[in-house]
Amino acid sequence: MKEPLSHDQLNLIHAYWRAANYLSVGQIYLYDNPLLKEPLKQEHVKPRLLGHWGTTPGLNFIYVHLNRIIREQDLSMIYIAGPGHGGPAMVANTYLEGTYSENYPNISQDEDGMKKLFKQFSFPGGISSHVAPETPGSIHEGGELGYALSHAFGAAFDNPGLIVACVVGDGEAETGPLATAWHSNKFLNPAQDGAVLPILHLNGYKIANPTILARIGKEELENLFIGYGYKPYFVEGSEPEAMHELMASTMDNIIDDIKSIQAHARSNGVMKRPHWPMIILRSPKGWTGPKEVDGKKTEDFWRSHQVPFSEMINRPDHVKLLEEWMNSYRPEELFDENGQLRPELAELAPRGERRMGANPHANGGLLLKSLKMPDFRDHAVEVPEPGQVMAEATRIMGRFLRDIMKRNMQDRNFRIFGPDETASNRLGDVFDVTDRTWMERTIPEDDHLAPDGRVMEILSEHTCQGWLEGYLLTGRHGLFSCYEAFIHIVDSMFNQHAKWLKVTSKEIPWRRPIASLNYLLTSHVWRQDHNGFSHQDPGFIDHVCNKKADTIRVYLPPDANTLLYITDKCLRSRDFINVIVAGKQPQQQWLEMDAAIKHCTYGIGIWEWASNDRGSEPDVVMACAGDIPTLETLAAVDLLRQQVPDLKIRVINVVDLMTLQPKEEHPHGLSDKNFDVLFTTDKPIIFAYHGYPWLIHRLTYRRTNHKNLHVRGYKEEGTTSTPFDMVVRNDLDRFHLVADVIDRVPKLGYIAAYTKQLIRDKIIEHKQYIAKYGIDMPEIRDWKWTWNEES
Amino acid sequence: MKEPLSHDQLNLIHAYWRAANYLSVGQIYLYDNPLLKEPLKQEHVKPRLLGHWGTTPGLNFIYVHLNRIIREQDLSMIYIAGPGHGGPAMVANTYLEGTYSENYPNISQDEDGMKKLFKQFSFPGGISSHVAPETPGSIHEGGELGYALSHAFGAAFDNPGLIVACVVGDGEAETGPLATAWHSNKFLNPAQDGAVLPILHLNGYKIANPTILARIGKEELENLFIGYGYKPYFVEGSEPEAMHELMASTMDNIIDDIKSIQAHARSNGVMKRPHWPMIILRSPKGWTGPKEVDGKKTEDFWRSHQVPFSEMINRPDHVKLLEEWMNSYRPEELFDENGQLRPELAELAPRGERRMGANPHANGGLLLKSLKMPDFRDHAVEVPEPGQVMAEATRIMGRFLRDIMKRNMQDRNFRIFGPDETASNRLGDVFDVTDRTWMERTIPEDDHLAPDGRVMEILSEHTCQGWLEGYLLTGRHGLFSCYEAFIHIVDSMFNQHAKWLKVTSKEIPWRRPIASLNYLLTSHVWRQDHNGFSHQDPGFIDHVCNKKADTIRVYLPPDANTLLYITDKCLRSRDFINVIVAGKQPQQQWLEMDAAIKHCTYGIGIWEWASNDRGSEPDVVMACAGDIPTLETLAAVDLLRQQVPDLKIRVINVVDLMTLQPKEEHPHGLSDKNFDVLFTTDKPIIFAYHGYPWLIHRLTYRRTNHKNLHVRGYKEEGTTSTPFDMVVRNDLDRFHLVADVIDRVPKLGYIAAYTKQLIRDKIIEHKQYIAKYGIDMPEIRDWKWTWNEES
Repeated sequence: MKEPLSHDQLNLIHAYWRAANYLSVGQIYLYDNPLLKEPLKQEHVKPRLLGHWGTTPGLNFIYVHLNRIIREQDLSMIYIAGPGHGGPAMVANTYLEGTYSENYPNISQDEDGMKKLFKQFSFPGGISSHVAPETPGSIHEGGELGYALSHAFGAAFDNPGLIVACVVGDGEAETGPLATAWHSNKFLNPAQDGAVLPILHLNGYKIANPTILARIGKEELENLFIGYGYKPYFVEGSEPEAMHELMASTMDNIIDDIKSIQAHARSNGVMKRPHWPMIILRSPKGWTGPKEVDGKKTEDFWRSHQVPFSEMINRPDHVKLLEEWMNSYRPEELFDENGQLRPELAELAPRGERRMGANPHANGGLLLKSLKMPDFRDHAVEVPEPGQVMAEATRIMGRFLRDIMKRNMQDRNFRIFGPDETASNRLGDVFDVTDRTWMERTIPEDDHLAPDGRVMEILSEHTCQGWLEGYLLTGRHGLFSCYEAFIHIVDSMFNQHAKWLKVTSKEIPWRRPIASLNYLLTSHVWRQDHNGFSHQDPGFIDHVCNKKADTIRVYLPPDANTLLYITDKCLRSRDFINVIVAGKQPQQQWLEMDAAIKHCTYGIGIWEWASNDRGSEPDVVMACAGDIPTLETLAAVDLLRQQVPDLKIRVINVVDLMTLQPKEEHPHGLSDKNFDVLFTTDKPIIFAYHGYPWLIHRLTYRRTNHKNLHVRGYKEEGTTSTPFDMVVRNDLDRFHLVADVIDRVPKLGYIAAYTKQLIRDKIIEHKQYIAKYGIDMPEIRDWKWTWNEES
Repeated sequence: MKEPLSHDQLNLIHAYWRAANYLSVGQIYLYDNPLLKEPLKQEHVKPRLLGHWGTTPGLNFIYVHLNRIIREQDLSMIYIAGPGHGGPAMVANTYLEGTYSENYPNISQDEDGMKKLFKQFSFPGGISSHVAPETPGSIHEGGELGYALSHAFGAAFDNPGLIVACVVGDGEAETGPLATAWHSNKFLNPAQDGAVLPILHLNGYKIANPTILARIGKEELENLFIGYGYKPYFVEGSEPEAMHELMASTMDNIIDDIKSIQAHARSNGVMKRPHWPMIILRSPKGWTGPKEVDGKKTEDFWRSHQVPFSEMINRPDHVKLLEEWMNSYRPEELFDENGQLRPELAELAPRGERRMGANPHANGGLLLKSLKMPDFRDHAVEVPEPGQVMAEATRIMGRFLRDIMKRNMQDRNFRIFGPDETASNRLGDVFDVTDRTWMERTIPEDDHLAPDGRVMEILSEHTCQGWLEGYLLTGRHGLFSCYEAFIHIVDSMFNQHAKWLKVTSKEIPWRRPIASLNYLLTSHVWRQDHNGFSHQDPGFIDHVCNKKADTIRVYLPPDANTLLYITDKCLRSRDFINVIVAGKQPQQQWLEMDAAIKHCTYGIGIWEWASNDRGSEPDVVMACAGDIPTLETLAAVDLLRQQVPDLKIRVINVVDLMTLQPKEEHPHGLSDKNFDVLFTTDKPIIFAYHGYPWLIHRLTYRRTNHKNLHVRGYKEEGTTSTPFDMVVRNDLDRFHLVADVIDRVPKLGYIAAYTKQLIRDKIIEHKQYIAKYGIDMPEIRDWKWTWNEES
């Protein structure tokens, strides 16, 4: 047991905390007079007061104590502030340690800088009230709650020298994603990963309600965290001196625990999951703030949640109260005449990159090493003729991922994430070279579980996403594979990450580019044989397309070779969110590798071998995006050829969905001229699309030939049925596509009635067949492409 | 302590369980020969085998034991099957008890019915492999995981006579929503609510991985659930006889616990939160299935998760194995020659509505009582002139909600849900008549907390949504108010509920209509003064619009009176999901109540008082949807009037967004003719829209005048700023709208250069002002509508 703080240490630490609190209150309230050199007047106060005081002093308290232990033991730590609106605390502390001014030289460490620091907070064009991408040392957008702990674990994986301190607010602790993220300890390897130090901060209130964890009995609370697998240390109280002593000695014990867990695992091997320490810090909401305002309880109460008192106009008593409050921190003892932190206090902060605002792990791009990429061509499927060979696209991709995993094994900077579906999604070849991460006990029959596995599976899309974000933000690489319908579970997390990337990549020069977040969506809407309607939703693409074009990319490779190319491209890219949609079932292959590369390089193109309009305008354009729409389109072309050999058809395949948007709206967008060359200006276009058809209209409504565009896609008609029946139910099947062409090409009027009767008969035959046998007719299942223009 | 089961009882219960298991295996495998009257051959087996065996025997085991206790103690219970793919179990049991055949007479309780029962499972046009809306007794779509427990609690609220048995799979238990839903016990009132009996079913494996809760030590597991506030009873084992005895005695104890908790609270008043009992059932995955297949461990292993063996063609040994397996249940002892359950077994099921498949709570529409609706007109804001009076729309709505709450207090069938934002969203007047639900200890300063409160606040959007769904599905009413940006957290839950409603309302006649799910989205994208970019996302509307038109409604009332009308309409509606978007800030009021009613009845209309095109074609149409776009549009009209008084402007306001869609696509859609009358066929339309602008294009791309439609909306440009700056950043402000008009009306060419310079100056002035003062210029904030056509 270490000695508690000496008297001098305690005084210094307390002073540093007061400085952080002073700067926090200043940010929330002051427009001018930052050092209170003259008596505070109404015009020194911001005209509109916005911010959250409640959580801030506790966050400051933690920061100061982490600083102490970092200095004392030369630790590498980063700080994740879960409580949404803890912005003032992180800003105040990074300002005190100097990292804020290094990143923002105009916010200098003097009176003028302090004035700007105060003004910018929650001020137009300034900074938000929550921890944001602009905050040095942060990898965590504090705007939405629930993800602090999964981010923390993501950051700790494969960072054996790092300790991630993660403050979890008691409000945030009520969210689902946070409630399950505690189980991340079952996936943290003490030998090869770093440590996460969760600090559950109970300050009692949300906006207007007490929090659950602050009100249940202490015994239940302790049981809960023992049940989650932790060793909880309680730090409870409100008297600063006692709290500093308690926090310091607890921090000492905890770092001892962490070091001994790690030393044991690193010298003796990983035997079993350790009980990692955590802190339960119970401190008053709005600690050190005014006890009462207008006779109403404020400190330790929900009235401290935001701005404890905000009426200032014609309320000189409030201005006075603010002045007294700020002076209670005795700023003159903390800052010199010029507003500079006094040297004995500045001394308390860690040095250089040990400062939490300057730790390079929190600006992951600084540490990013490109993946060593094997040649994806080595996995090419041989495609001597289009449509003759069958392959499972994601299985081929799995082999490529296996090789990537292998080549980067030493660097330990690539992981695959997913909710228990890696094998089901046919990526199982990665298990040739690694295992699933698993720290619990195993039994002999278990399949590829190991503490150092690099495939992370937990039945929580939120946790997968949070881990991956934390992993990427600290400079590593990864892929998230998920059932298409259920990726909506992380819609809101996607939003936050997309917004983070928009801001960091375009507006914050000191943030270095990080690896893109890559999704593989499979088990998609068109192949849900036994799951049925509840598993059918291709709308994540729509959701993604609402975000900034600079940030998002959507790919629909139609076969294995195109999928290989796109996978390679996505894993090399930076600062994007890439969505890849590809099926896992055996499917016709269309392009040999060279053709696939060429096709994907443009992202869209005419498939000459499937078209017969060479040298002339076509009668109809048949476009497709997605593996199943491509299959049905080509089958329709085949049928049309038999019926009307002289019909000039142009087949266009779209891999990169963003090519459809105008060039002005997305960097991948085709120019209007090129779009017109491909799609003509006046011929009918039958577009078979993987998802909701209106997305294609939304992307193309400004194009010249939009009026002739007819899109088929998923329109929420589904059930438990065969693959072909799913397309029939949504009018996306070959027969409906043929009917669409006949309806829209005037010169086919002469065969319209006859052909449509044929088509109706075919559909009836299909319905009868599957009702009887439960599988698709052989002629559908075994259909092969026959058209060869030369033939 | 009750006696355990008698020998006879045990034998009967075991036989009933065997019958359920037999029917479950039959559903997964058999196409014909349901009673195995002839030796099993390959052609009796389905051509494609799909389904999930692993969880099924455990679900059957629970069902049988619930049946026993229901009969013995005459309980009213429903059964929620959390494990996703437990379909066969629920179908088998409801078939055995007779409810399945009552709802689906073609699936009769005889050999022919059994054959159909088997065939339809996971068969085209049949039923899905998970518990679905088609399943009698279910209120829970088993397709996506995570919501079983919040649904269960939602069902139990205000149902004092009901016990909701809720099986939570150990896979599902890893999801975030489920992990936090355990805390729902802090909101369940033992006096006035029913009971939830959670049964955590540990069968060890997900698809390919062990589950966390099945592998952590028993002590941790017990701690976890004690920490969650439960009294866990363990039922562990694999030997059927012992397990039946243990389950029966546990069930006896638990019902005793529940009854004594309820009796105590109901006679002595609610003193403190009880420790509700729960069961932790550990049984082998694929229990009673084949121990080994092809020499590989199968029972109690992940290989039992789906179909334990599915290769049948050319595998007579597998056909033999299946036959042995099914015969191991000794079907001849269970069913007579005709396939009817033997009477001594049929006797075991509860009677009539006590059967869990027939409990009316699980078909909530049967019990639904319309809300007693006070007259919303009583809360009308006086609007003598448009744009002169200010009001906070949601505060007015709050008063109406208070009156609704009051009038229905006796019926206890209306609750309001939200993540700690009811007061923040200005609905606080409801606290005049009720409190926030809260079972934990309180302190004197707490604000409106009580065990019988009817406002439910937990910082988990998932739990709010899950509770509300459970509450609605059992025949009650509710409203969910949420910050607009964060409603995306429940995107995927919304999907499942929308799909449930599509199926139940259109395809399942025995499902009675239930009250609609109503969202109030406020704190919306245009008013996020201190939150900034991370809180800005109006895309939930886009997400909603991807679902079936029969099910979804979107309303953007521009002021308080229209909001009142829409609230009334939504709370009276059935089987819809209604999304209402409305701001909470003080805002100009436009329509007095009669005009509001008229306007909302059509959902779209010309605002004559703001237009000056009467009796002629306008030069420009200025359309708006949403409160802020309406404000900016009218301010732009005002400016234009000053600049160019002879410009003919038509102002159209859209309350019901679905009116924009073609009539063929949405029942609220305008006919093309009416659309053309409103929007003209060739005049420029400047459309100011609340959300992402492309949604308006998507809804209107088929309209005649779409080519002249120019939409302004949110385009992901935001930060911490003033209300007006937010619209400026997205080009939605009055000045940009004026510029848009000038650009598009040829006859204004003569003033274009001059006016645009004025506009640029205005924008610069605005930027400078807010950079200095942090608030909007007075002329913007205090702007009032001045145009009066008569004047």
